[in-house]
Amino acid sequence: MAKRNNKLKIIPLGGLGEVGKNITVIEYNDDIVVIDCGLIFPEDEMLGIDMVIPDITYLLKNREKVRAIVLTHGHEDHIGALPYVLKKINVPIYGTKLTLGLVENKFKEHNITNAKLNIIKPNDIINLGCFNIEFIKTAHSIPDSVALAIHTPIGTVVHTGDFKIDYTPINNNMIDLHKFAEIGSKGVLALLADSTNVERPGYTMSEKTVGATFNDIFLMADQRIIVATFASNIHRIQQIVNSAVLFGRKVVVSGRSMVNVINVALELGYLNIPDGTLIDINDMNNFPYNEIVVITTGSQGEPMSALSRMAYSEHRKLELVPGDLVIISATPIPGNEKTVSRVINQLMEKGANVIYESLADVHVSGHACQEELKLIHTLVNPKYFIPVHGEYRHLKRHAQLAEELGMDKENIFIAQNGSVIEFTPDSAHFGPSVTSGNILVDGLGIGDVGNIVLRDRKHLSEDGLIVVVVTISKQDGTVIAGPDIISRGFVYVRESEDLMEESRAVVKEVLDECVKNHITDWATLKSNIRDGLRGFIYEKIKRNPMILPIIMEV
Amino acid sequence: MAKRNNKLKIIPLGGLGEVGKNITVIEYNDDIVVIDCGLIFPEDEMLGIDMVIPDITYLLKNREKVRAIVLTHGHEDHIGALPYVLKKINVPIYGTKLTLGLVENKFKEHNITNAKLNIIKPNDIINLGCFNIEFIKTAHSIPDSVALAIHTPIGTVVHTGDFKIDYTPINNNMIDLHKFAEIGSKGVLALLADSTNVERPGYTMSEKTVGATFNDIFLMADQRIIVATFASNIHRIQQIVNSAVLFGRKVVVSGRSMVNVINVALELGYLNIPDGTLIDINDMNNFPYNEIVVITTGSQGEPMSALSRMAYSEHRKLELVPGDLVIISATPIPGNEKTVSRVINQLMEKGANVIYESLADVHVSGHACQEELKLIHTLVNPKYFIPVHGEYRHLKRHAQLAEELGMDKENIFIAQNGSVIEFTPDSAHFGPSVTSGNILVDGLGIGDVGNIVLRDRKHLSEDGLIVVVVTISKQDGTVIAGPDIISRGFVYVRESEDLMEESRAVVKEVLDECVKNHITDWATLKSNIRDGLRGFIYEKIKRNPMILPIIMEV
Repeated sequence: MAKRNNKLKIIPLGGLGEVGKNITVIEYNDDIVVIDCGLIFPEDEMLGIDMVIPDITYLLKNREKVRAIVLTHGHEDHIGALPYVLKKINVPIYGTKLTLGLVENKFKEHNITNAKLNIIKPNDIINLGCFNIEFIKTAHSIPDSVALAIHTPIGTVVHTGDFKIDYTPINNNMIDLHKFAEIGSKGVLALLADSTNVERPGYTMSEKTVGATFNDIFLMADQRIIVATFASNIHRIQQIVNSAVLFGRKVVVSGRSMVNVINVALELGYLNIPDGTLIDINDMNNFPYNEIVVITTGSQGEPMSALSRMAYSEHRKLELVPGDLVIISATPIPGNEKTVSRVINQLMEKGANVIYESLADVHVSGHACQEELKLIHTLVNPKYFIPVHGEYRHLKRHAQLAEELGMDKENIFIAQNGSVIEFTPDSAHFGPSVTSGNILVDGLGIGDVGNIVLRDRKHLSEDGLIVVVVTISKQDGTVIAGPDIISRGFVYVRESEDLMEESRAVVKEVLDECVKNHITDWATLKSNIRDGLRGFIYEKIKRNPMILPIIMEV
Repeated sequence: MAKRNNKLKIIPLGGLGEVGKNITVIEYNDDIVVIDCGLIFPEDEMLGIDMVIPDITYLLKNREKVRAIVLTHGHEDHIGALPYVLKKINVPIYGTKLTLGLVENKFKEHNITNAKLNIIKPNDIINLGCFNIEFIKTAHSIPDSVALAIHTPIGTVVHTGDFKIDYTPINNNMIDLHKFAEIGSKGVLALLADSTNVERPGYTMSEKTVGATFNDIFLMADQRIIVATFASNIHRIQQIVNSAVLFGRKVVVSGRSMVNVINVALELGYLNIPDGTLIDINDMNNFPYNEIVVITTGSQGEPMSALSRMAYSEHRKLELVPGDLVIISATPIPGNEKTVSRVINQLMEKGANVIYESLADVHVSGHACQEELKLIHTLVNPKYFIPVHGEYRHLKRHAQLAEELGMDKENIFIAQNGSVIEFTPDSAHFGPSVTSGNILVDGLGIGDVGNIVLRDRKHLSEDGLIVVVVTISKQDGTVIAGPDIISRGFVYVRESEDLMEESRAVVKEVLDECVKNHITDWATLKSNIRDGLRGFIYEKIKRNPMILPIIMEV
């Protein structure tokens, strides 16, 4: 048990130096509250990995202190790791109604039935150990997002969550600037704020501008309209519905997560669709195409998504026809540019007209740009600042922004995952770091794929594999069968018969040499085979396949 | 030998539906001229591939007709496949001085000594079979670029190459708008024009604006400056040198291709560096850092490039120090966004200040935007139009642009690689297509990696490999040794000993079953092993590794 040192610790376990996997620990003596519990999607070089979740060793070590996990909103990078974490540490979870609706949905898929979910509303204050946590309404690309004011024994910490400022939001969900001002005027120890869009000058446009664009497009469209967007962007979906109603079109929903989220949102009252507007995809052909709007997943060009299946004629219920108007109401997340572009090309080749962000204002970001950040910094007026949610370039830029607003450089902490920032009422400094990191999820395996496995996958992916099998005699070590050579992912064997035959000869020679020199230990045999063959192949063809020598003894 | 049908054929063998690998065939009866001969860098899913070159089966079938390859400029996507193509069909090559200088450099690396290189200048007219080819000065992100007017027996074809319009170019290399106008006023049968930037409204900014930004930055910098850009962008390099001279800094060059290109450019007079300005990288430390500018490769975040090596402290001659100012004078090519971002983060973590495109105007494109394209269409005033150099979305948009300018839809041909567009003096239509495609280059192998090999690499990369080896008796098919199970890229074996042991048991069971049922043919044995193990593993861990059963007989 750690000493009671009356210090407040803020420990980001994820979300720093990366965009995603957000999880932050707030600790004071015997109490810990965890903010968010997200996943991140794998980098390209994490071959075969499905998702990445945070290493929570620190929480497990301090499990008796953990009072709760508090959620700011329902995006995967804030709630996606919950099913994995909850199996190890089942603490109460707090969040708004929609956030917990999405969490519940997720738990159902994972057969988790013992979660302790607690719905909160903006302006609620809950007590968790020594902390009082106040929820502040914000705006984001999913409804029901909140910021947190964590009142601790030595001062208040404000965590913005993901946010933007939207003066004309859908459903009048205006961010509660008064509350930020009120908390700020009482004195704030530290601010943790979203850095995602800190490189962008100016303001993020209002979500309503997208609705206006939809109306313009719907007005002129005389064919079926298909809109792809993020399933969780319920405001966006509401606006598509609004335009559909305005122009007398029925709404069809396609894609598993879109169906799921729309059901949750309808059930909880976050989406308003007039009776008779929503129709089953199987009934679509009962209406003329110019009376249809399809809302679909796939705005990131995901290969298995509904939109991709439409583009490649693999959708079971919807076949594109020339003239279909496809609107991609999203921006490619960095790294997805090429897959999105491929889907656009494919849709166009099918004769669809495609509208995407570079052609019309069919998307706005959910994150605050520089001027919005300045407003929040000014209202909250904190003593210390920790930029969160971003790669190093974003954190650095956000630190600069705080400096430009007059904050002392020494009061700004650019941290890493696992950093510990320790506060007293009038000081702050980095303490010793704690364990943090990436746990890779591949199928049902959690953490059983690591650097060695990934290195092997990379090696295999680049030049393939050559297996060399040889059976030798137990008695005298002579070769009884083989060497046989099998390759995969290396060359077209049929066109490279000579190369394979020569390779066999090289291995034979190595084995003969070993026999002559009375080398019988398998490790040396294998490494001689590997070295001999590797050198030969590289010289011949400048490739470096994985070489796997296998010795059988009979 | 094809019939003499007096039709002009235009056959794009590469560069359509893709950005790169540009190569176009112009054919009339017994004469063929080839425009450009480029490569394209592999898509992500082409695992392990180094580059992709065009399938030139059509040229080899018609080799006696091919009069020459004519080059528009010296970028890899226009000249990169020459070494491979020339080994199969050694025809004369025509290009401007710098273009051929870069080609020569490339041929040296490939030990090609028998190339027939012919330098041309803008305004030259050369005769190749029935064609007269006129060269027109253009502007692009490499000096000495040209467009072509190909005067054929049935009319003139204009091919823009890659181009932009720059009214204030470096070294006064103004695009020859008068020539375009003159050729246009005489009547043009068909225009082939660059579609790369057709989605961007307005004009591409002048290269000179980048020089002004450099001056602003250099003026305020009190530390070492490191500028990363494309080696071939000699205008950009000239401007960096100009700013260096203006502010009294020495210039250091880093990166193999940067050294190569600068040497060629200096030798041929395309780059002007005052004596004493260029210093060896080994002498850098004889000067204070605020008197140094380093010009380096790596603007695309390429892992082995000089800039990446600096960022990761692996550069042998240059160690970053806090305060170093790094300017990335380029935009990430689609697909490179994440690698560039990673290098930026890494540079910043080393304490460098990094300026990139979203922060300042340190880059302009080399391709024409919409208003520039409209100007060229208007001046050339062609009867027919074929958009080239672009993905389908670009070609489609470019076709729309031509329509907006008043061209008949039927006179616009959105073609694919291998399409044949046949012209008479007053008609044009698609003829039967010819062979075209991608030849994959991996190490020294050209075309020996295809879909099966790539599919195997992808499979191996996602879930790794399990090799099952068993030795059976020649006499009665009983198992003498094994089954042994070896895995790579699958799981951490040490943490999954149970799984591996169970897998062995599953295979043993399959083998016992086979013996019981007198199954002895190897194909069935192997497929039973594969199916049994695959099912078991998928159920256990939801992964699908490649399973490679190997049977030895003694």
